[in-house]
Amino acid sequence: MSADLPHLALRIDGARLLDRLQALAQIGAYQGPNGEPGCSRLALTDADRAGRDLVVSFMREQGLQIRIDAIGNVLAIRPDHRGRVEQPVLAGSHIDTVRTGGRYDGNLGVLAGLSAIEAVARAGIATRRPLAVAFFTNEEGARFSPDMLGSLVYAGGLPLDEAYGIRGIDGATVGDELRRIGYAGSAACPGPVPAAYVELHIEQGPVLEAAGLRIGAVTGVQGISWQEITITGQSNHAGTTPMALRHDAGYAAARVATFVRELACELGPPQVGTVGQITLFPGLVNVIPATAKLTVDLRHTDEQSLQQAEARLREFAARLAQQEGVQITSRSLARFAPVAFDPQMIALIESTAQRLGASTQRMPSGAGHDAQMMARLCPAGMIFTPSQRGISHNPAECTAPDDLILGANILLQVMLTLAQSEALLPSP
Amino acid sequence: MSADLPHLALRIDGARLLDRLQALAQIGAYQGPNGEPGCSRLALTDADRAGRDLVVSFMREQGLQIRIDAIGNVLAIRPDHRGRVEQPVLAGSHIDTVRTGGRYDGNLGVLAGLSAIEAVARAGIATRRPLAVAFFTNEEGARFSPDMLGSLVYAGGLPLDEAYGIRGIDGATVGDELRRIGYAGSAACPGPVPAAYVELHIEQGPVLEAAGLRIGAVTGVQGISWQEITITGQSNHAGTTPMALRHDAGYAAARVATFVRELACELGPPQVGTVGQITLFPGLVNVIPATAKLTVDLRHTDEQSLQQAEARLREFAARLAQQEGVQITSRSLARFAPVAFDPQMIALIESTAQRLGASTQRMPSGAGHDAQMMARLCPAGMIFTPSQRGISHNPAECTAPDDLILGANILLQVMLTLAQSEALLPSP
Repeated sequence: MSADLPHLALRIDGARLLDRLQALAQIGAYQGPNGEPGCSRLALTDADRAGRDLVVSFMREQGLQIRIDAIGNVLAIRPDHRGRVEQPVLAGSHIDTVRTGGRYDGNLGVLAGLSAIEAVARAGIATRRPLAVAFFTNEEGARFSPDMLGSLVYAGGLPLDEAYGIRGIDGATVGDELRRIGYAGSAACPGPVPAAYVELHIEQGPVLEAAGLRIGAVTGVQGISWQEITITGQSNHAGTTPMALRHDAGYAAARVATFVRELACELGPPQVGTVGQITLFPGLVNVIPATAKLTVDLRHTDEQSLQQAEARLREFAARLAQQEGVQITSRSLARFAPVAFDPQMIALIESTAQRLGASTQRMPSGAGHDAQMMARLCPAGMIFTPSQRGISHNPAECTAPDDLILGANILLQVMLTLAQSEALLPSP
Repeated sequence: MSADLPHLALRIDGARLLDRLQALAQIGAYQGPNGEPGCSRLALTDADRAGRDLVVSFMREQGLQIRIDAIGNVLAIRPDHRGRVEQPVLAGSHIDTVRTGGRYDGNLGVLAGLSAIEAVARAGIATRRPLAVAFFTNEEGARFSPDMLGSLVYAGGLPLDEAYGIRGIDGATVGDELRRIGYAGSAACPGPVPAAYVELHIEQGPVLEAAGLRIGAVTGVQGISWQEITITGQSNHAGTTPMALRHDAGYAAARVATFVRELACELGPPQVGTVGQITLFPGLVNVIPATAKLTVDLRHTDEQSLQQAEARLREFAARLAQQEGVQITSRSLARFAPVAFDPQMIALIESTAQRLGASTQRMPSGAGHDAQMMARLCPAGMIFTPSQRGISHNPAECTAPDDLILGANILLQVMLTLAQSEALLPSP
């Protein structure tokens, strides 16, 4: 889309953004092993309620219209120049965290969206389209599975009833917890379709820092395949059982784990593969493991490539089971196809970053984000800011203040361009 | 040693041995997943006390002189033809079990020793040397480390004070628990030196069954090296961290586990190597593990070969640490040099088995046994009976009744031969 940029000099209030990030990080604050400022707010807990209440108070301070839907997503709208609230240009992200979370994951996109709308309002700009900012419920999936639950329900990907029935790691259900914390809202799910969706997020990886760049224009989200693999062998005495007579479930698990690495390296970037969990039973120093469970996380930006990696892993497991005389079964824990963001959105983010003098590159997202759900409804895009040492989901998660503010200013300009554009954005 | 065998037709009371094994297995009885008759009597627990009380009652029924020492070892003696109790021919083993134990491990050697002495007494045979049977405290090491604790203290390998201070997996100390269950006896540790020591034990491995043999004449006990390896890498996001930038402690752990298998196979029998425990932290499907802990169990009958295997593992870990950019440290959990049993004892067990018509072979023990501690004091040997499917430390542990009785009869004949021999046995 083409757009004149009469407000290219407009900036968000950087100090206020940092203050608000700091205030939100106080809720659920904890210290990492070296005193790092972590933040732990699992979805729909008391801490999450307190975080929600704080962000809603910011939204009210700005005089925005607030819409809380049945899955607890909160959307705050600044009407367009004719007072309409339909089809807003929507910024969004989430404010829940993993248990060992940091200060910026999710929070940045929500509070930067608020800052962007605030800057437009303070400049007295009447926009052709409404502006809005949202936070979505349970993006992390650390308490309730699947992750990106709120945006999935918003986009119509999961019926509300099913979502309410999901039981978390502590046994509580989404429905009960939503009602308990007072965030089972009255607005309908699936939600109304925005004109466009833009999400500012920390990269959560080392790519931008390693390349010396400040902004990533995100091309899409990798497809994700999570499996739990169960291996059943024969428990036996570690001293008395000759190597040739073993059916060692632990050894087979280790072979799968090394294969996942070799496979990812052989297939090459952007294929990644990770074994994050291995559990051996009975788990004694002098007993050959009877059973092993491990998880495999495979990701690729291309669906066919991801399927190929899954197939290679299946073939390897079948051969290994035969060689070792063990049984190997697998069940899917999560499976998302890759998502490609709208080409015009990617181009707009990239050109806006360049106009603001920020070094930038196009890159896929390795992590899942609410934007991939919203991409089912409308043109969607994401802006990445660098993560120092690539660290996230960790109290040491850090992005330089200048990068936080730069990212928010690019979000502001992108939102404003979209809101003022004459051209209707194409449907996804 | 040469010996006439005037009592070669003497046999133990097989039905009584099976009855006593059954009665002892009732104490701590539990059912395995398929109804298998397991037995769980961790050392110095109430169940262990009840098991001890039962075996002591059997000893008293036979009119034996009972000696309980300060570490809780119980020794029952039938005096020689002149009424002396010094330098007995001693049978022994243990009656504690692992948590997931079976009915025969340890119990067989103790109750068969009792049956052997009973058979001699009922035949009215006055022996040149006393006969004795003992059970030693905490052989399994499942509650208190190290294993073979009672026989180690008996043989002078660990001071009593140190043994008393050992804290178990539940926080209790050996000294407190011995006093609590009433088995901190008055007899001295280290204990008196026997003339010889013979232990009947289930093989706990598949070798005899696979070879179709009924008796193993044990040549010695493998040396044991237990290590805990700790790997420190860098936790990071599984989706956003390119393969080339990872320091994955879980992958490194899997490499160590596969190397242990390759090393054992390359070095060949009797080298064995096992990784029984792997723990990853934080242990999440989408987080590259920051740290990993794993155990390595290496065993060989030859000390130099065992040291070579340890050195190869060290070198591998050092290379791996460099390649992966992780730290790898190791600490020893247990280290026992190989023990070779007395050649005359091995020959006597082998020839006795042959005289009784039992198919037999010489073989090392893959597991540790009290006999390896007693070998520090006197000529020692072991008799193995087959373990069905090689299973032990498991409720499915099983040895055929005929094999149990055959083993006990060989024990009887070996003890009698040693007790009647004119020749003094050589010192170890």
